[in-house]
Amino acid sequence: MSDWIAARQGRFEHFVEARLPDEEREPRRLHAAMRYAVLNGGKRVRPLLVYAAGEFAGAAEAALDPIAAAVEFVHAYSLVHDDMPCMDDDVLRRGKPTVHVAFDEATAMLTGDALQAEAFRVLAEAPVAAETGMALIRDLAQASGTQGMCGGQAIDLAAVGQSMNAAELETMHRMKTGALLRASITMGATAGCVSTAERAALEHYADAVGLAFQIVDDLLDAVATSAELGKTAGKDQRQSKPTYVSVLGTEAARRWSERLRAEAHDALSSLGPEAQSRTTRLGQLADLIVQRRS
Amino acid sequence: MSDWIAARQGRFEHFVEARLPDEEREPRRLHAAMRYAVLNGGKRVRPLLVYAAGEFAGAAEAALDPIAAAVEFVHAYSLVHDDMPCMDDDVLRRGKPTVHVAFDEATAMLTGDALQAEAFRVLAEAPVAAETGMALIRDLAQASGTQGMCGGQAIDLAAVGQSMNAAELETMHRMKTGALLRASITMGATAGCVSTAERAALEHYADAVGLAFQIVDDLLDAVATSAELGKTAGKDQRQSKPTYVSVLGTEAARRWSERLRAEAHDALSSLGPEAQSRTTRLGQLADLIVQRRS
Repeated sequence: MSDWIAARQGRFEHFVEARLPDEEREPRRLHAAMRYAVLNGGKRVRPLLVYAAGEFAGAAEAALDPIAAAVEFVHAYSLVHDDMPCMDDDVLRRGKPTVHVAFDEATAMLTGDALQAEAFRVLAEAPVAAETGMALIRDLAQASGTQGMCGGQAIDLAAVGQSMNAAELETMHRMKTGALLRASITMGATAGCVSTAERAALEHYADAVGLAFQIVDDLLDAVATSAELGKTAGKDQRQSKPTYVSVLGTEAARRWSERLRAEAHDALSSLGPEAQSRTTRLGQLADLIVQRRS
Repeated sequence: MSDWIAARQGRFEHFVEARLPDEEREPRRLHAAMRYAVLNGGKRVRPLLVYAAGEFAGAAEAALDPIAAAVEFVHAYSLVHDDMPCMDDDVLRRGKPTVHVAFDEATAMLTGDALQAEAFRVLAEAPVAAETGMALIRDLAQASGTQGMCGGQAIDLAAVGQSMNAAELETMHRMKTGALLRASITMGATAGCVSTAERAALEHYADAVGLAFQIVDDLLDAVATSAELGKTAGKDQRQSKPTYVSVLGTEAARRWSERLRAEAHDALSSLGPEAQSRTTRLGQLADLIVQRRS
């Protein structure tokens, strides 16, 4: 597994390194900030899900690189904007100063805006059939918009200091982080070929993994240190944000993440033993997402 | 002309009114802010250019509505982000409080982000052949990104308090406002069918009109009142931003805008008398852009 991950991460870094605009080209400060925001040693969970789902679906690797880049650009832009003073006001991300600290607020704003444009551009230039490209762009735009990531963040903003029950929290997180994780999986599959039953199983897997990811994020925010996370820990509680830990308690949240991990494996197993060799990576990524320590 | 404009503006308002997410649907505050940002009585210069170029190219009207919406969503998102305190810090836009004043900064940030996603979504769902859709998305992403609008804004940021010559100013504005105006014209044409010579003429027209638009903007900022403009006038000078007025002087700037208007007409005339009936609207829009008073 670690070989597979390292190989895909290496492939991904190589692709985005070459794809992101050159720092030596004008506007240099903006280009430098975009590279700083993306090339910062993230875990690349979303790209790994793209590759794993794409390989399951028999997609060409060259078609998966731009998809992986697109979802990571959207993820990176959302972090840059989220960290700004008018949102979460955070100074630390992946162990380094956030973009608005390392550069300035206006550059951070433009960096996020330009990364979103780049996400759609890399898809529109992907080596896939035009119909496939249009489906990928629809999926990403949907996952990023008001019924996906941006909408989840809006609900998150409104929730500060409010109480939420577990169902409301789940709705918010399915939009805020789940939608893009889910799109990573469905877009990887779209680049290849899957049966209706396979797509349904992947969607079930994606729903479980997307939610598990957020529960684990909440657990880590509550129990890990900033040094372990590379970002400010304990922030949710200080900001009085409802989280799975505040709503369910640590133990119940941990049990739920384990149940979702089992659900993800069940979704893959439902495809029968003959699919097993193709679902190995997806199963391992579910384990990684739930069992990670940062 | 005013009938044609009123009809296209009416058609456009109707389309985006129905297309923008409903304020009654969650997340309501975000949806309300998106509608506030777009449905605010702008002049719709970019949509009008889309319709005029599309009608020149014989495109179906139903294909032009989503293109007009996409360019206007990008334009609207850029205004929302531009007006924020970390950028231009402006409180007035089209005669109303800016989005971060009427709502709040975090909502303004998300509104811009979500409008950009909507722009690509409306194109990805447009009733056009997939190849056409991909070309449209490439064009819009290019015009919005670091070699277009975002890049121009980054250069603009770096220019505050600096001196610029006319050539540097032109480069900045060709990116900052010219790229999206140009894309409005080329995308409208892409939805239909144009010969190589026609495309070249349209691009020449677009370059002239895009630059003329900005020169007139600079002139209006210097000479009109806030009430006439519906936005804060005299801002460029207070912010020590290089403009065509500060670099060339009012009279030379006005003469240049007139020369560009003539160039736009020449580009259309180069297609010969048989094309004249198809280029009327484009010619009239060039006049409107240069001779507007707000």
